[in-house]
Amino acid sequence: NEVADLFKQLNLVGPGPQKKKKGGAGLKVPKGTRDYDPFQMAIREHVFDTIKACFKRHGAETIETPVFELKETLTGKYGEDSKLIYDLADQGGEMLSLRYDLTVPFARYVAMNKVQQIKRYHIARVYRRDQPAMNRGRYREFYQCDYDVAGEYAPMVPDAECVRIVSEILGALDLGDFTIKVNHRALLDGIFEVCGVPEEKFRPICSAVDKLDKMSWEDVKKEMTEEKGLDEASADKIGSIVQQAGGRDLIEKLKNDAEIMGNARAKEGVESMAKLWDFLEAFNCEKVTSFDLSLARGLDYYTGIIYEAVLNGAHVGSVAGGGRYDGLVGMFAKGGKKVPCVGVSIGIERIFSIIEEREKKKSNKVNRTTHTEVMVISGQKGLTVERMKVCSLLWDAGIKTEMSYKDNPKFLNQFQYCEQKGIPYAVIVATDELEKGIVKVRDMQAEEKTETEVQRAELVAKLKELLGKQ
Amino acid sequence: NEVADLFKQLNLVGPGPQKKKKGGAGLKVPKGTRDYDPFQMAIREHVFDTIKACFKRHGAETIETPVFELKETLTGKYGEDSKLIYDLADQGGEMLSLRYDLTVPFARYVAMNKVQQIKRYHIARVYRRDQPAMNRGRYREFYQCDYDVAGEYAPMVPDAECVRIVSEILGALDLGDFTIKVNHRALLDGIFEVCGVPEEKFRPICSAVDKLDKMSWEDVKKEMTEEKGLDEASADKIGSIVQQAGGRDLIEKLKNDAEIMGNARAKEGVESMAKLWDFLEAFNCEKVTSFDLSLARGLDYYTGIIYEAVLNGAHVGSVAGGGRYDGLVGMFAKGGKKVPCVGVSIGIERIFSIIEEREKKKSNKVNRTTHTEVMVISGQKGLTVERMKVCSLLWDAGIKTEMSYKDNPKFLNQFQYCEQKGIPYAVIVATDELEKGIVKVRDMQAEEKTETEVQRAELVAKLKELLGKQ
Repeated sequence: NEVADLFKQLNLVGPGPQKKKKGGAGLKVPKGTRDYDPFQMAIREHVFDTIKACFKRHGAETIETPVFELKETLTGKYGEDSKLIYDLADQGGEMLSLRYDLTVPFARYVAMNKVQQIKRYHIARVYRRDQPAMNRGRYREFYQCDYDVAGEYAPMVPDAECVRIVSEILGALDLGDFTIKVNHRALLDGIFEVCGVPEEKFRPICSAVDKLDKMSWEDVKKEMTEEKGLDEASADKIGSIVQQAGGRDLIEKLKNDAEIMGNARAKEGVESMAKLWDFLEAFNCEKVTSFDLSLARGLDYYTGIIYEAVLNGAHVGSVAGGGRYDGLVGMFAKGGKKVPCVGVSIGIERIFSIIEEREKKKSNKVNRTTHTEVMVISGQKGLTVERMKVCSLLWDAGIKTEMSYKDNPKFLNQFQYCEQKGIPYAVIVATDELEKGIVKVRDMQAEEKTETEVQRAELVAKLKELLGKQ
Repeated sequence: NEVADLFKQLNLVGPGPQKKKKGGAGLKVPKGTRDYDPFQMAIREHVFDTIKACFKRHGAETIETPVFELKETLTGKYGEDSKLIYDLADQGGEMLSLRYDLTVPFARYVAMNKVQQIKRYHIARVYRRDQPAMNRGRYREFYQCDYDVAGEYAPMVPDAECVRIVSEILGALDLGDFTIKVNHRALLDGIFEVCGVPEEKFRPICSAVDKLDKMSWEDVKKEMTEEKGLDEASADKIGSIVQQAGGRDLIEKLKNDAEIMGNARAKEGVESMAKLWDFLEAFNCEKVTSFDLSLARGLDYYTGIIYEAVLNGAHVGSVAGGGRYDGLVGMFAKGGKKVPCVGVSIGIERIFSIIEEREKKKSNKVNRTTHTEVMVISGQKGLTVERMKVCSLLWDAGIKTEMSYKDNPKFLNQFQYCEQKGIPYAVIVATDELEKGIVKVRDMQAEEKTETEVQRAELVAKLKELLGKQ
């Protein structure tokens, strides 16, 4: 699997600028952060543009919130992970913290502005004082890329669209085969109830189940019984149920299970999954979806459907995740109306690492960091002003144009620059031709390095034709 | 002047969400910050896209740096404004501060990565614990939008391109007439020398001169003599020189002034301005440029050309500014090579406020916050899955499509949604037509609300034709 290979290499290669951290005069960036160089930014821009295009195709709006929130806004939302929140110094005034994710600021935004309905995406950086593992793409400052729908709607309709969106994005980014795992928190709770788990142990047992993608059942069972004090019979019964995955077949099997359907929460979960499956078929994305009863997700605030996407055969962890959280806005809107929400977050940093390695491997390809279409080249010394006039003409026409900033650049160096940067056309300015009102155009990608004489008055039209512009 | 009118209104109107600050359950955002709602974000995106298109037209790359830097990176770069820097709390580990601008992180990046040449733009938020004046668009968290060229080049060549870039951007944003003021720090220093200002008073006197756009000469002179201890004769001589502005004519006048040209620094400045003017003419932007001897700029680190752009007749302050700073990278690169730099920063927050007010005034226009092209509408109850299938078909074809998330949305409400959101086409799904393999398409912008029957197999082609897509 190519993607898995690429990711393995990440451990060795690591992203660009970090290697130079102890470069110039012992300068460095804060622990767990990095600069992005133009090559990394070009890839990042491509990935963001692909993702944004999908969000826009689904009619999503976008919002922005401050990078820091009042400390109290974040308090009590992240459980024991709260210790990873960055606080600002007390410089007189409010107590502030850097945002830890985009979901809590979104819920605060919805509650504060009394929004009843919104479908929004938000792409921005968040901050966690975690132990960084930069060679595996885990930073203290990283992008999140969230899509959420808030509002009272028909059951599972926006929930199904979230699956479709993940499927469109992972497909468009050309990451190979993927699986979107789905499960339902109410169903899990119902199963725990059926298996005799006491209510106060639901969340700890849920978090043990969530480890089934990384640990064997034996180890998970040990955690349930030895660490979390569950009796062995209950644990075994859970194990026999949650290790199942499938699609419509699994839904039918559960529907025929009288014990499961006899529990109100489990019944609600199964019926919701059946409805979801109808919708996934209508959205033509059921083939990439797996109803996986071991999917549990860590966050406490999920109340319904939960999602997690993985790349098949690549052990890189999840590349998207999310779920329904109907209670979070209500935590802010004291006395106000509750606003149910569902959303997914694209694991953009992992995806970015994978694509960066893939592009680096294409050794015979120029990794373009600019969009320059034309380089205006000096044929002799002393033509700075003449080159400027040509640039000006081309900029006016919307043609992306550069020239050397030197007064007397070497002829060959200018062509070399075109090749390094992948600039497709060169316009050569020289004294003799200037007198005749002529410049020369060279196609840098052609096998034969021939030049065409063009009347200056026709230069814009000629270049637009070559560039396929109207 | 329309722009001036708009800006006056800003004092009354203020930006969106702040008005709701005391809305839901007493929630608020940190002092001096704000959320951006979808309307504001749509404008912001348009402005950013316009500016990025210009930077890319000139072949600029982009980089990103962390939102916080080691505190020591920022120390000693901002003079007395250092008190406005946000520090992070000491949670064990490094001492960190939020970035105060994008220039110092850029210089740190160039020094740390031993970059010899780069032309980069960077659009990102910066942080200042200033007294906010939100109704005048001054926030503690705000965007900067910087273009800088680092490297050893021919004199005034990248410097002239900065003027061209400001001219392209302000023109493209349709902000009315503008003037780009330019001056030269070496010339100012030379003038101070000629006028008998002692070297240690250069910066304080420079900062007094800089106030001539807001204060009368009498008040500036008072500051020079009473506050800053300059003798009256020197002050008067400065006044007679720096109150001049012009173009080629002023350059010629200075060239013929033996006293000015007898001073080495002033001579260097005048000759540089002459060269700049040649280049501005070649770049066809000398008409919007004013050589203004009173322009001084606050920051200490400028060493050559300085810029400031204003909107003519609108008293909104500067909308762009910058200059040459040849010493900043050297402050980081201890023992390393100095890298000369020149750059401009677009005053994006002011521009954004102006355009936001302008768009709000267009009352008969829908302010679109999405790009949705087609709304799939339910003609009867119970067609959720059918609508989903049509959406799926259109998404696959790259058509931006929405449907109501309700199971049984009211017919008229769905059309109302199209109108509110400015969605140009509706596709109506109804049982009768479904059986015949037909849907109806309505052009929402047409005077007459007629519908066209379309075979489902031809729907994508028909919509692409209507939307002008290939």
